[in-house]
Amino acid sequence: MRTGMLAVTVMLGILATGLAGAAERPVAPNGIVLPERYRGWQAIAPSYRPDKDHIRVILGNETAVKALQEGIRPFPDGAVLAKIAWTTRKHPKFPVAVEPDKFVQVEFMIRDGAKYRETGGWGFARFVGNELKPYGKDPSFALECLGCHTPVKENDYVFTSWPPVPGPR
Amino acid sequence: MRTGMLAVTVMLGILATGLAGAAERPVAPNGIVLPERYRGWQAIAPSYRPDKDHIRVILGNETAVKALQEGIRPFPDGAVLAKIAWTTRKHPKFPVAVEPDKFVQVEFMIRDGAKYRETGGWGFARFVGNELKPYGKDPSFALECLGCHTPVKENDYVFTSWPPVPGPR
Repeated sequence: MRTGMLAVTVMLGILATGLAGAAERPVAPNGIVLPERYRGWQAIAPSYRPDKDHIRVILGNETAVKALQEGIRPFPDGAVLAKIAWTTRKHPKFPVAVEPDKFVQVEFMIRDGAKYRETGGWGFARFVGNELKPYGKDPSFALECLGCHTPVKENDYVFTSWPPVPGPR
Repeated sequence: MRTGMLAVTVMLGILATGLAGAAERPVAPNGIVLPERYRGWQAIAPSYRPDKDHIRVILGNETAVKALQEGIRPFPDGAVLAKIAWTTRKHPKFPVAVEPDKFVQVEFMIRDGAKYRETGGWGFARFVGNELKPYGKDPSFALECLGCHTPVKENDYVFTSWPPVPGPR
């Protein structure tokens, strides 16, 4: 009986936490909620966009990292990639180095081959600025994302590679 | 008795694994062994060095990340920062994006205020190229590292900041 009550209490606790968390999280027009704890995912690679004056880091959850490391295509369902972009500045004490300045946006690709069949098997989302404003007016915004990713269709619509690092892990 | 034998077997197994692992790992002239599993540490920030044509990602273990997030200075003992550098290339399918090409080196700063008192409380190490060749001929190489980091002495010799990311974690 005590175990039963404990289980119910724990479940209610988890439910309450989940609801509170979800309430704070922005939602893209295709229903994608800003993923939790993505900032702690493993770094895949940095990138730099001189045309936009952006510097970026691409992160992946465990499923995405494993697929990249092992060259698995298509990516398995559950793989999620995140790309955080900042404007750049010259390091104040070392101006030959270009580093992040202000937050620009964070973008996601969430793999679910059935759910997102119309956009290459990927759910796209972008959250912009310090308000993390969801990009797009309706779910069709994701077709724009897919359009830009079409040049890498043969790589399952993913631009980023796993960059080489030698030696023991 | 069976439990005892199991424990011994497990311990010998761990010992053997540890020795095999250590044997493969390069050692800097100041005794710093290439840290294990650093590639999985959390991403702190990307950086770009147009003067060297390098793109980089700076990673940190939990102690280092916490200190950066919370502005703790000096860094506590046990904090370790890693910086991986690659040469750059234009993305073959999207040439406005600059991404990693070939591995250049990986560098470390390991905090131990007493052990590394002569180099600002930090143990420095650099492993270069696909052979991960330790940089420096003798332990004095670390004075060169310290020299370059002196402009950020007031930030405990660390160049990298925790870049802003808004919203819930």
